[in-house]
Amino acid sequence: MTTPVSEPRFTARYWLETAFPVEETAAAMAGEQSTGTFLKLASEADPLVQQQAARIEAVSVLDEVATPSLPGAVAPKGIAPVWRRAEVTLSWPLDSIGPSLPNLLATVAGNLFELRELSGLRLLDITLPQQFLDRYPGPAFGVSGTRRLAGVERLPLIGTIIKPSVGLDAARTAEAVAKLVDAGIDFIKDDELQSDGPACPFEARVDAVMRVINDRAQRFGRKAMYAFNLTGEIDQMRRRHDIVVAAGGTCVMASVNSVGLAGFSALRTHATLPIHAHRNGWGAFYRSPALGFDYRAWSKLWRVAGADHMHVNGLRNKFAEDGTSSIASARACLTPLTEATPATVMPVFSSGQWAGQAGETYERLGSADLIYACGGGIVGHPDGVAAGVESVRAAWEAAMDGETVEARSARTPALATALQFFGKVRG
Amino acid sequence: MTTPVSEPRFTARYWLETAFPVEETAAAMAGEQSTGTFLKLASEADPLVQQQAARIEAVSVLDEVATPSLPGAVAPKGIAPVWRRAEVTLSWPLDSIGPSLPNLLATVAGNLFELRELSGLRLLDITLPQQFLDRYPGPAFGVSGTRRLAGVERLPLIGTIIKPSVGLDAARTAEAVAKLVDAGIDFIKDDELQSDGPACPFEARVDAVMRVINDRAQRFGRKAMYAFNLTGEIDQMRRRHDIVVAAGGTCVMASVNSVGLAGFSALRTHATLPIHAHRNGWGAFYRSPALGFDYRAWSKLWRVAGADHMHVNGLRNKFAEDGTSSIASARACLTPLTEATPATVMPVFSSGQWAGQAGETYERLGSADLIYACGGGIVGHPDGVAAGVESVRAAWEAAMDGETVEARSARTPALATALQFFGKVRG
Repeated sequence: MTTPVSEPRFTARYWLETAFPVEETAAAMAGEQSTGTFLKLASEADPLVQQQAARIEAVSVLDEVATPSLPGAVAPKGIAPVWRRAEVTLSWPLDSIGPSLPNLLATVAGNLFELRELSGLRLLDITLPQQFLDRYPGPAFGVSGTRRLAGVERLPLIGTIIKPSVGLDAARTAEAVAKLVDAGIDFIKDDELQSDGPACPFEARVDAVMRVINDRAQRFGRKAMYAFNLTGEIDQMRRRHDIVVAAGGTCVMASVNSVGLAGFSALRTHATLPIHAHRNGWGAFYRSPALGFDYRAWSKLWRVAGADHMHVNGLRNKFAEDGTSSIASARACLTPLTEATPATVMPVFSSGQWAGQAGETYERLGSADLIYACGGGIVGHPDGVAAGVESVRAAWEAAMDGETVEARSARTPALATALQFFGKVRG
Repeated sequence: MTTPVSEPRFTARYWLETAFPVEETAAAMAGEQSTGTFLKLASEADPLVQQQAARIEAVSVLDEVATPSLPGAVAPKGIAPVWRRAEVTLSWPLDSIGPSLPNLLATVAGNLFELRELSGLRLLDITLPQQFLDRYPGPAFGVSGTRRLAGVERLPLIGTIIKPSVGLDAARTAEAVAKLVDAGIDFIKDDELQSDGPACPFEARVDAVMRVINDRAQRFGRKAMYAFNLTGEIDQMRRRHDIVVAAGGTCVMASVNSVGLAGFSALRTHATLPIHAHRNGWGAFYRSPALGFDYRAWSKLWRVAGADHMHVNGLRNKFAEDGTSSIASARACLTPLTEATPATVMPVFSSGQWAGQAGETYERLGSADLIYACGGGIVGHPDGVAAGVESVRAAWEAAMDGETVEARSARTPALATALQFFGKVRG
């Protein structure tokens, strides 16, 4: 029984490492993730069962290494093992799971990671048929909706994170926000460590912060966007979202690994505000080169689920990720899934960002559709927060105007100071 | 300002690798996960802020290696780096986040994995104060409730997984279930790939399967437990749970990595049945020795959230995990969190299991409070499914009676056949 070409299927592309012939390992993967067990069962040969089987779409051998990247893998007996790396693409009929993100994850990134035929496995990319994408709302705001709400047309949203991450109560958070908004900031986010702890309860924080933001919005005619971290249980997130709406807020934030796909979907279904999707914990998924996920694949899950903003670190960040990887992640965020369902999200640059990376970021990404979040890079400016914001905005204006940052700094002292001060600190 | 000893705190114990002095790296971790940014801010010194700071509780240096385990890490300049491994325990005041699993995860396993001072980080264990545990329901059934519902007092629940994993429609699934229940099985689970796909819709499967199970329950006086995989979005999971209840079912199953902590909590809050927590995807969290989670730490999240059964693989499984690790995981499942909140869960042995591992499993675990799930090891028995079940049950009886499996097989031909057949296949 052959499958009609038009039957919708989803695909997953993997990087893998194995001491067995790659085709054989690919077949083991397809079996494990559809119709197999460790003994051949008669029913597996059944045409109706076969129709639901995973299929190998492509195999491409890359290189060989002498030692396995991960422990626990087995090799064929009787010969000195060679560990081959390859890219393998599998596909599944959509009918096997239906359009469901949680079940998609269990299928493309479930037991496969444990297969002992594999000494390495990374999920590089996924593709979903339009019928799948049609089931999910995707981002409600994305780049254009976020720009509209924040009142920022051309430049990136210049943003910051409330620091210290924890320890400020509602009133002191609002004081910090007042300084930032008065300094002209476009976007502020809670730290991911701050949600609704007794030391800074969510509702009190929203009340105090939105009083400041609403006051400035009335006076300045532009409302700074504040991403309130509502990470928690489903009912808590819904209630917190409604508190933000009632107070006139324009963004909420959730830690995606903390709430999970089903939790995030429930929030998205309920939400009427952009959702800032924080990826903390992502390091555990990507830092081993032989295991886990590429950001392109992983971020698609959250884009389909409805994230509006997603974190990508940035050039010369303080984490282990290199700048090339951050730029690739940001580009993935801005690349449509399909024509009918672009589901593009606004990449969030953060971690050690200041005016100094603006030019290169713009040059390498080729876009200013992003949130550029600086912590110390704004609030640590020697001349104060306003100078911090001015320095970052000026650096981006220069980048987009094709002006060197040095030329621009000649007429923007805040930028000159930033280059001198942070340049020495951060290199 | 010193923190009173009685103030409730939660702790996280890590294995780490760093080229910097371990104390310094531990301080960087504590800073990143509480009050820090890349520049020292005046407010960090504030006593109220300090009260919320993470604290280093213990540091113990283990060994040194010449090369970093993970890429992207930095080393002090000017000297040849040595990469030190250590165990570090941090603690946080509960007041910083409140009793919230999603926010706990962001705190103990968030950005830390990305720190470039680290060339390796594993979360080994967590402890939670009683006030935290009191907030969550924990497992409603656990070992005793599961035994009661399944009508199994002493032996493990002898279980199996519907195979082929996908491809059987509702009617054919029910046919397979009839054979298994007639063969005396205690426990059956859907494969994690099967939830509510169009090829085998959930409601039709529950109807067909429970008709068989209810019929046998009336006739035999004991109801086999079937874990229906309801993995999906929150509303879907609630609806599917209610379908199982209405049909007289006694267990539901969810893929925890697919639904996430908030999704799982929402299911637990709604559920009146034991929840079989499937860990597919876990391989990505543990297979790199230098990254991710130990099962002890990770499984606690789901135990607090309310899992009743959790997977641990098993001895000589078909995956990359070795048996020692599986036994340690099972022991963790059966070790109380606190006296007031044991939250013990029933470990689920699966993957390549058959009669052959029963004796050693019992000896090494020291308990029969487990689900022993065999796929091919039951349905692949040469003399049929009933012989498969009989062989596994006899092997467990022998183990618990202090009889050798050889002695027992002399009077249980099904066991003798299994030892001969699977012994050759599996070694």
